[in-house]
Amino acid sequence: MGSDTKRLAVLGSTGSIGRQTLDIVRSFPERLRIIGLAAGANADLLAQQVEEFKPELVSIESSQEQRKLKQFNCEVTTAEEIASHPDVDLVVIAISGIAGLKPTLAAIGAKKSIALATKEVLVAAGSVVTAEAKRHGVRIMPIDSEPSAIWQCLQGEAKTVRRLILTASGGPFRNLSTKKLGAVTPEQALAHPTWNMGPKVTIDSATLMNKGFEAIELSWLFDTPMDNIDVVIHPQSIIHSMVEFVDGSVKAQLSIPDMRFPIQYAIFYPERMLNETLPRIDFLNMKSGSIENALTFEKPDIDRFPCLRLAFEASRKGGTYPAVLSAADEVAVDRFLKGQIRFTDIPRIISEALNGHRGTSKPSLEDILAADDWARKVAAG
Amino acid sequence: MGSDTKRLAVLGSTGSIGRQTLDIVRSFPERLRIIGLAAGANADLLAQQVEEFKPELVSIESSQEQRKLKQFNCEVTTAEEIASHPDVDLVVIAISGIAGLKPTLAAIGAKKSIALATKEVLVAAGSVVTAEAKRHGVRIMPIDSEPSAIWQCLQGEAKTVRRLILTASGGPFRNLSTKKLGAVTPEQALAHPTWNMGPKVTIDSATLMNKGFEAIELSWLFDTPMDNIDVVIHPQSIIHSMVEFVDGSVKAQLSIPDMRFPIQYAIFYPERMLNETLPRIDFLNMKSGSIENALTFEKPDIDRFPCLRLAFEASRKGGTYPAVLSAADEVAVDRFLKGQIRFTDIPRIISEALNGHRGTSKPSLEDILAADDWARKVAAG
Repeated sequence: MGSDTKRLAVLGSTGSIGRQTLDIVRSFPERLRIIGLAAGANADLLAQQVEEFKPELVSIESSQEQRKLKQFNCEVTTAEEIASHPDVDLVVIAISGIAGLKPTLAAIGAKKSIALATKEVLVAAGSVVTAEAKRHGVRIMPIDSEPSAIWQCLQGEAKTVRRLILTASGGPFRNLSTKKLGAVTPEQALAHPTWNMGPKVTIDSATLMNKGFEAIELSWLFDTPMDNIDVVIHPQSIIHSMVEFVDGSVKAQLSIPDMRFPIQYAIFYPERMLNETLPRIDFLNMKSGSIENALTFEKPDIDRFPCLRLAFEASRKGGTYPAVLSAADEVAVDRFLKGQIRFTDIPRIISEALNGHRGTSKPSLEDILAADDWARKVAAG
Repeated sequence: MGSDTKRLAVLGSTGSIGRQTLDIVRSFPERLRIIGLAAGANADLLAQQVEEFKPELVSIESSQEQRKLKQFNCEVTTAEEIASHPDVDLVVIAISGIAGLKPTLAAIGAKKSIALATKEVLVAAGSVVTAEAKRHGVRIMPIDSEPSAIWQCLQGEAKTVRRLILTASGGPFRNLSTKKLGAVTPEQALAHPTWNMGPKVTIDSATLMNKGFEAIELSWLFDTPMDNIDVVIHPQSIIHSMVEFVDGSVKAQLSIPDMRFPIQYAIFYPERMLNETLPRIDFLNMKSGSIENALTFEKPDIDRFPCLRLAFEASRKGGTYPAVLSAADEVAVDRFLKGQIRFTDIPRIISEALNGHRGTSKPSLEDILAADDWARKVAAG
């Protein structure tokens, strides 16, 4: 292990981002070492990962699965302990939903570098998390194509920005009428046209709530008002986002849609590493004159996809409203996946929670967790 | 005049780039001051410019036009004197063709900042010019959309580049057969689909020689081997060029096609200035699903457009070959514009000059000027 080896904790290692993070670790055995792995309930996959990466620390949330980890020669502990362990340099946070919040704060408190995939952490608690990060001198690096694209475009010139242009694939139902949207099944919603992701974020992509979350995430990461963030539908997912500067010049970041790009960028920042296993765009062999091989842009339809509007409204209201947005969405998506509600009920449920909420401005962590809790009960119906 | 006022000399002020440079100066009267103006033969326009900008120094190449400048209260001198005058901070070089070389070297010798629009200077004499610039600690900043795009994409991370991806509109004859190319008129060739430029560069765009010149220019400006430069046809001229980094991530710079973008960027570098007179891309109102409003990419056809191949070959041979390429092209384009030769004779004449040339490696300025002179005679037929 050389002096430039980074020691990683991966929280949420059995999920989609976690597994792809371990793929990157496999590509750089000399540079990256796994110190800790934490998962939710998939003990069998976690056990495989422990055998392969031989971490010092391991954690699984589900108490009935913990005995399966006894066989290994490593300490069984909690995600928070792993996130703040002295042997860890960088914490990859890829736990789905608000469950990522406490480990994030633990990692910040221990002055770790943070690579954050769980956007709900910033959506629900952006004020608290960014204030803590500032207080401890910690950099929060995004693991997601769009915020990573913005971050890359801002390298070397972050001061003269006019707008952030956040691109969205539009999801699988981009061209469906509101009536047809009411009839879509979880199976249809889980088949994303360009991205292979976990179930929560895939449904959020289909409702465009994911794009609303990303806009809120950008506003915290890059200290940008929501009014300076445009959402543009770009169905090919090749341009991952753009920055417009004050002179009208625009920078874009492009790649084949593959989550390993933003993962690798965050892990090695500010270095860029050669990785031959990542796919490359071949501009010389795109089919000419065909709309399939062209890059297109259109305005999102917030009448058919009201989640996007709800996210901007909640962010503008501020305080605990974004926490309510995030929690109500988490419950509504879960209910949709269980077949309890229709696709078009998701924004209705979130909207009702936001309308019924009495917000707190300048919320504490406790205020945020209370709002989260309240919204979950309301959204559960 | 404040302490942050830049004092400019504009060489080639009556040409397309010169006039657009003065447009930028008009937008920033507090920040930019014209010290010197130099033109070729258009004394009437130069006189108007002198009245408006009241420079200290003025120059016109045509000796019979010089008397028209006598009426003004400013010193009539040479382009080289203006380029090296103590009152000048930044020299904009926008003289068409090899005539820009000596003023460029004069400006470098006087340690001025250089904003270079005349790509022939680097094509013909890149080795001499970049060595002189290095020796005097002078930065050469490109004024042209494509090299400016590359330069902008390299801000903050110039070290881990894999390829430069140079985009080309493809010109007005992108889809014409070789047979039909033989019959095109100067009028047709001067009607460029996306860019409004001077006649020489417009014809060079139609033959794709302009793209070959830009590739050579990039190789000198950014110290990049020609084999790491791809040329990609992008008919919409919205993406002005791209950089692929070692990790496979690509950055692109985009704007509405308007030469004032790279002019303003070079003049104020490293500052970006708000300029409401420049057009902005409106991604939210591009027509959806229409090929006209999509960004497309295709491979250039070097069989129909052999100038592109000739430029790469001349650059790989090095020495005085690129000077021959540039000089033969200048003469051939002039002959085409005068109706003396056909469009498809342009690459034939250049190819014959290159084949007949006995190159000098590590050429001096004299070697380059001799090769230029020789090639002009050969190309004149």
